[in-house]
Amino acid sequence: MPPKRISILGVGLLGGSIGLAMRSIVKDCKINGYGHRQSTLDASLRLGAIDQAFTDLKAAVQGCDLVILCTPVGLFSGILTQISDALSPEAIVTDVGSTKQSVVESAGKLLKYPDRFVGSHPIAGSEKRGVEHARADLFRGAHCILTPVASTDPKALEEVEEFWKLLHMRTSRLAPDEHDRILAEVSHLPHAVAAAIVAIQSEKGLSLCGPGFRDATRIAAGDAGLWRDIFIDNRASLLSSLRRLREELDQLIRRLDQDESAAIERWLEAAAQRRRNI
Amino acid sequence: MPPKRISILGVGLLGGSIGLAMRSIVKDCKINGYGHRQSTLDASLRLGAIDQAFTDLKAAVQGCDLVILCTPVGLFSGILTQISDALSPEAIVTDVGSTKQSVVESAGKLLKYPDRFVGSHPIAGSEKRGVEHARADLFRGAHCILTPVASTDPKALEEVEEFWKLLHMRTSRLAPDEHDRILAEVSHLPHAVAAAIVAIQSEKGLSLCGPGFRDATRIAAGDAGLWRDIFIDNRASLLSSLRRLREELDQLIRRLDQDESAAIERWLEAAAQRRRNI
Repeated sequence: MPPKRISILGVGLLGGSIGLAMRSIVKDCKINGYGHRQSTLDASLRLGAIDQAFTDLKAAVQGCDLVILCTPVGLFSGILTQISDALSPEAIVTDVGSTKQSVVESAGKLLKYPDRFVGSHPIAGSEKRGVEHARADLFRGAHCILTPVASTDPKALEEVEEFWKLLHMRTSRLAPDEHDRILAEVSHLPHAVAAAIVAIQSEKGLSLCGPGFRDATRIAAGDAGLWRDIFIDNRASLLSSLRRLREELDQLIRRLDQDESAAIERWLEAAAQRRRNI
Repeated sequence: MPPKRISILGVGLLGGSIGLAMRSIVKDCKINGYGHRQSTLDASLRLGAIDQAFTDLKAAVQGCDLVILCTPVGLFSGILTQISDALSPEAIVTDVGSTKQSVVESAGKLLKYPDRFVGSHPIAGSEKRGVEHARADLFRGAHCILTPVASTDPKALEEVEEFWKLLHMRTSRLAPDEHDRILAEVSHLPHAVAAAIVAIQSEKGLSLCGPGFRDATRIAAGDAGLWRDIFIDNRASLLSSLRRLREELDQLIRRLDQDESAAIERWLEAAAQRRRNI
């Protein structure tokens, strides 16, 4: 059964896109939106991403059967603490955070009915932020990772899975720590490296950059606060990914130093093949 | 005066796009195409990228007023040696190579009329290769760097500049060594890093990657042989760029290790600002 009333806590790019998608797919679902800026809530109402706007968290979740945390990860603990008492025992809580271990732990500690929390990570978005960039088709065809733990209510897990499928996502399940390790490698590391590549450029270089550079560094334009939260929250895994990348680059440096042309070509070819296979 | 007969040595993505662009812009220009594979030449004729196909280098350049080297950089020396005697004293020679110092040096040594050579680097292209991906508008609006030296004939330089402007490119001039330093930073380094990021991924990670990863690593799908040539040819500058990136990553590692959240956010914000300003 699709949810009858959902609450989107944080109506930005992701939260707004959930609202727009739900409106276009499930006609009779009511959509509450919480935000701390009235201008964002006004824009969300105007764009049709939410039906009702709230600046009070407890009021925003009352009577909802599905609550989705869509703010930056750094705000989750405070939100979970505040909404805990206002949730009905039947309400399911999920989120769209890019890290999962700390989120699942917080939910386990802070919610009154922790078994009704299911961590989610829809792998969609862009370097843009704000509800004005929200799109009803942002999630379509993309992947959503769910991170249940032993105590998670299987019924809640299934319902959250159905919810993302309703938005035309493909879903899979991972343990929270495995999610964080893999995402450090495939998402947080590329972001850190894109920022580092931009950081070392000269102004002259930036003025001469081509389409390859622009694509490779597009993600570096993303919101700094959001990514700081992700980096700090997933510090251990990101550190280990950064160290592995450094080893890979050190190997390339050695091979260039020694003019190992054939080994460099084999390395480039292996990467090219893997990239083409995605 | 636009050239009357040009010779494109190597009809791939770039050479083919030059042919298609010239055909659409200068109606009465004859376009010779040289290649070592008959199938490529057949496709080039069929697509209208060239008027006449040659598998003999000397024949391909005879009677041409503009000759453009469009093969991988590693083949340039052999080509320059072979065409030198077949060029008329008035013929202008240029190229589309991604590195310039070695190319300009080779031309200076190997050509009978070295002052008629002008190094060019049109910053356009994609990870695709082959004339089947050529487009008449590949160069439109993009930047082309010319790398004249003291001995370069100013008239030849102007004519090559006019040629790229004819293809709707913006042109600028750099010394060959400065070009190579800047391009190592803004192009060759991002390529090396994209390959390294792909190389360290697990299969699971690749199967879960999102749009950010795909954009950040798109260039890694490029032709390995072509990029090996570029890496080896621009070894010193690429090594120095790699070492600067490593320092930048080491700084991030230290900051993560010490949980310096504010410094990390400032660093991310500075990169985001620079990237948004491109």
